[in-house]
Amino acid sequence: MPDSIIRMIESFKMLPGIGEKTAERMAFSVLNFDDEQIDLFVNSLSDAKNKIKNCSVCNILTENDVCNICSDSGRNGNILCVVDDVKNAFLFEKMGMFDGYYFVLSGLISPMDGINPEDIGIEKLIDRIKNGNFKEIIFAFNPCIEADTTSMYIKRILDGYDIVFTRLASGVPMGANMEYVDSLTLERALNDRKLVE
Amino acid sequence: MPDSIIRMIESFKMLPGIGEKTAERMAFSVLNFDDEQIDLFVNSLSDAKNKIKNCSVCNILTENDVCNICSDSGRNGNILCVVDDVKNAFLFEKMGMFDGYYFVLSGLISPMDGINPEDIGIEKLIDRIKNGNFKEIIFAFNPCIEADTTSMYIKRILDGYDIVFTRLASGVPMGANMEYVDSLTLERALNDRKLVE
Repeated sequence: MPDSIIRMIESFKMLPGIGEKTAERMAFSVLNFDDEQIDLFVNSLSDAKNKIKNCSVCNILTENDVCNICSDSGRNGNILCVVDDVKNAFLFEKMGMFDGYYFVLSGLISPMDGINPEDIGIEKLIDRIKNGNFKEIIFAFNPCIEADTTSMYIKRILDGYDIVFTRLASGVPMGANMEYVDSLTLERALNDRKLVE
Repeated sequence: MPDSIIRMIESFKMLPGIGEKTAERMAFSVLNFDDEQIDLFVNSLSDAKNKIKNCSVCNILTENDVCNICSDSGRNGNILCVVDDVKNAFLFEKMGMFDGYYFVLSGLISPMDGINPEDIGIEKLIDRIKNGNFKEIIFAFNPCIEADTTSMYIKRILDGYDIVFTRLASGVPMGANMEYVDSLTLERALNDRKLVE
């Protein structure tokens, strides 16, 4: 195989979940792209490294110093949604039901893995909250022990502030069968039960 | 989401079998690539368009005028393997059991789809065979009606030449369960049966 195809296959294999066979199929499909498609692909990849940085306020990915969300004064300044992965902030934006602001931590506290509060940028979050006007902090983490640890840690530091701390409801997913849900989820679903109104 | 990420997602969606969600996951993974990885990716894609062309002899993909296989005089000049997709030639090379030469047609004859012999480059193949020293032509097509049509067409044109025409054996795949094989395959497996020696 020509070197350039082999290098293309190696490139695609760097992507998550892509093995040899799929990478080959992708590489061959690129050979059928027209110049415009190749340009789009090449430029988008090089832009990814050159243009995209973290918002100086909330850490979300942006091409500017401050992201579009943080610079939008029309949003609800009383609610802050804290996520541990920038993807999840975009997920919320896509849903379109949340109009507060975001803060992206770079992970969750996990003493077992040697990840301490200072490793995930909690200090910046605390400063943001102390200098802000937030009445509610929503912890939008995937349900796990580390999520609980991180939420509790932040809540404790901000003890005394007039702020409500919430987390996403955890329970049986819509459309799912209770039978196939693990017991921890079922336990949460029971504990988080809501009044039928 | 920043424009550059959106364009990256659009790029990945051009690849076969990649939908919105997977493209997103890929785009975010690229953000964690180091400069070297980005360079490899970007260069391999632009090289794909600039460097790779079809071998002037056999149509296989190559960075030179004549591919490595055609310019290797150590191979068996008596056997020509005809494929309808360049990928399958590479598949044979990977297997490492074939030491003849290749010819890549650009598809198979399919009157139903308006694909005629002149559309798939048969003339160049005929010239190659007439000017060559081949004793056997192997048709390595996926088993289908179009494959049979194409093989028969080529065989008829070369009527009178001292050449054996063969096709790949068709039958029950190794490790497969006969029960789950379609009846046409089973029919071929019966017709192509081999002496137990």
